[in-house]
Amino acid sequence: MGETMSRDDLSEQLADIGRRFDARNWVLGTSGNFSVVVGRSPLRLLMTRSGIPKGDLAADGLMEIGADGAALQGASGRPSAETPLHVEVMQVRGAGAVLHTHSIWSTVLSDRHASAGGVAITGFEMLKGLEGVSTHEHREWIPILENDQDMGRLASRVRDVLGEHTQCHAFLLRRHGLYTWGETLPQAVRHVETLEFLLEAVGRTGGS
Amino acid sequence: MGETMSRDDLSEQLADIGRRFDARNWVLGTSGNFSVVVGRSPLRLLMTRSGIPKGDLAADGLMEIGADGAALQGASGRPSAETPLHVEVMQVRGAGAVLHTHSIWSTVLSDRHASAGGVAITGFEMLKGLEGVSTHEHREWIPILENDQDMGRLASRVRDVLGEHTQCHAFLLRRHGLYTWGETLPQAVRHVETLEFLLEAVGRTGGS
Amino acid sequence: MGETMSRDDLSEQLADIGRRFDARNWVLGTSGNFSVVVGRSPLRLLMTRSGIPKGDLAADGLMEIGADGAALQGASGRPSAETPLHVEVMQVRGAGAVLHTHSIWSTVLSDRHASAGGVAITGFEMLKGLEGVSTHEHREWIPILENDQDMGRLASRVRDVLGEHTQCHAFLLRRHGLYTWGETLPQAVRHVETLEFLLEAVGRTGGS
Amino acid sequence: MGETMSRDDLSEQLADIGRRFDARNWVLGTSGNFSVVVGRSPLRLLMTRSGIPKGDLAADGLMEIGADGAALQGASGRPSAETPLHVEVMQVRGAGAVLHTHSIWSTVLSDRHASAGGVAITGFEMLKGLEGVSTHEHREWIPILENDQDMGRLASRVRDVLGEHTQCHAFLLRRHGLYTWGETLPQAVRHVETLEFLLEAVGRTGGS
Repeated sequence: MGETMSRDDLSEQLADIGRRFDARNWVLGTSGNFSVVVGRSPLRLLMTRSGIPKGDLAADGLMEIGADGAALQGASGRPSAETPLHVEVMQVRGAGAVLHTHSIWSTVLSDRHASAGGVAITGFEMLKGLEGVSTHEHREWIPILENDQDMGRLASRVRDVLGEHTQCHAFLLRRHGLYTWGETLPQAVRHVETLEFLLEAVGRTGGS
Repeated sequence: MGETMSRDDLSEQLADIGRRFDARNWVLGTSGNFSVVVGRSPLRLLMTRSGIPKGDLAADGLMEIGADGAALQGASGRPSAETPLHVEVMQVRGAGAVLHTHSIWSTVLSDRHASAGGVAITGFEMLKGLEGVSTHEHREWIPILENDQDMGRLASRVRDVLGEHTQCHAFLLRRHGLYTWGETLPQAVRHVETLEFLLEAVGRTGGS
Repeated sequence: MGETMSRDDLSEQLADIGRRFDARNWVLGTSGNFSVVVGRSPLRLLMTRSGIPKGDLAADGLMEIGADGAALQGASGRPSAETPLHVEVMQVRGAGAVLHTHSIWSTVLSDRHASAGGVAITGFEMLKGLEGVSTHEHREWIPILENDQDMGRLASRVRDVLGEHTQCHAFLLRRHGLYTWGETLPQAVRHVETLEFLLEAVGRTGGS
Repeated sequence: MGETMSRDDLSEQLADIGRRFDARNWVLGTSGNFSVVVGRSPLRLLMTRSGIPKGDLAADGLMEIGADGAALQGASGRPSAETPLHVEVMQVRGAGAVLHTHSIWSTVLSDRHASAGGVAITGFEMLKGLEGVSTHEHREWIPILENDQDMGRLASRVRDVLGEHTQCHAFLLRRHGLYTWGETLPQAVRHVETLEFLLEAVGRTGGS
């Protein structure tokens, strides 16, 4: 999809996603960040800028960058500090879009299950919202990584976790929030909504 | 109503219902599905397509099908996989519209009360939102069915449950969500809102 | 205010209140009902019709009636079955507007505190949203009445409770919801928002 | 910023903030109040009027006042009774904007942690939404002051607390709500969203 939609269309879609996630309280403050692939060889992506409220991306909230985070096409400003995590997911998983949300329930669950190293979710019909999952009997393991301000180190651990859990659709950063992705932007949105639902359901059920 | 409103009017109503339920977090991801009868002999229904976000039904989210789920009028795509459950409710209960929502509270309650086989709700004024109920002293029994990916088998159990609980206005699928219906689409909407309220109230009260 | 605003202005205001309360999940299904005085001698009021969703009052959701609930000006349909409770509040308290909401928290609290006969709320700054209250040290007693489908009997108990608790700004019907009022419609809205906040705060605090 | 934006632009921004906070249930009733500096020598500020719903500031909800709360430019009405607290924050911290919200979670937490004199928050990525904070390992101490209707006395205690906790980004008034501020209005908004998130996350986690 990244290849066939115009950059303007993708920007509009990302702005719309920002407004919708903002209305659901998933990107309060300037939390959360979004990216979408706009070219593959070499990798180019449209990325949310650092420090921008996600409910108001329309005017100046996005920039096009390379895999190293450097601006392309004369863009000014800085991309999200978490860009290396997005690039890692794109490279390891071939994702076309990566979305990071920062909801109450993903934050609370990322802490409650930290000592177990992840959250296991099974038995919920909503699991079928995850690409390739065809039954509620699926067991999804969402790894939890300790949070870290050293993005190089954290990106390296993300790579390890994605290598170790080759089937996972997402990971949590402890007391930080949810990362998920998709082949396309709509698929990544579906994964966010699916996982935010599941985390809240697990959180309110009290079990896993 | 199904007979007297145009297909376009019904499509607009369903799209509006999708937006409203989406805003209430009742159809996250691509969860939930809606149907309305557009003809009776033989049964024809307007059904949400498989895998479509319910907040965005306007363009291409609905299709007209027969009781066997086959597309009519050259419609492409696939109807919701849960179509057989909708058809069952239409045939057994004569419902004009069937709505399936997938909220946090219906999911949590469907699990918490699963071993009892259902949720009993009594003493709430809101019960009067259910067709034919005229007092809060009414006792509504909402059967809970184990979830199943075999739709033929599940439809058959839905038929049994509707036969056994001839007065029930809804059923829950375990860890899956709420099914309710009405003679008309507005009545079905009223039942969804009434039951989602009651399930949350019961869930927060801790009793039944 | 009732005397100086046009019926059209009041209708628009009530429709707007309905949309806002609907967005807050305070009038799900067809729950809740609203009234405003449009004349005093004899009493005439604009009342929500029975069985209408409060988020969609614009077209045909209101009717003008007398104190006995009979339609004026050739209005068709039936006013809310709870009209006698509204009239009682208007007569005993001289209220210009009466609003009944049906939220999760007012329902849950009306049950949790039923054996005490009411909810005492003190120490919250938000109490100052109640007309005439100037300090958070105020103690508001919200009486709880057992729910009843006999409206004559319930109206009579409302009269007794208003006579006994001459300072109260509201009452709860058990497992049914909140009644509050004001000299004007905006004041009644302020009371709803103030009390719904306080009931949720008390409910989540676990104390009173 | 106060110096370079027009009063009309600031009024529009405040009205927009009011609508957004209202939609999040952070300024129910007529709770909450907002201010922004429009001049420094002497201090002049745009302040919400007393008793106005914050979701509807557009028409007549703001007035320009001096540090003593007296109206400038022939404005009528009264500014918020809590004006002295805003002025205190502007003077002690050099804030360009002060926002007071009144959410469920800030109210509940202000009570739950009152005996400790404040809430300590550490380990959350969202802390980086606070100006000058660059790591989740930051420990934010949010002092809690007993509520008081004597605004002179309360303003004096606010001054003491700001002097004692020179690094804090906010304080809570017990059973009353959150005060935070920023160099600019957008920064103050970011602080509100960041802190409301953190207080809810702490509240639902059960820890601090």
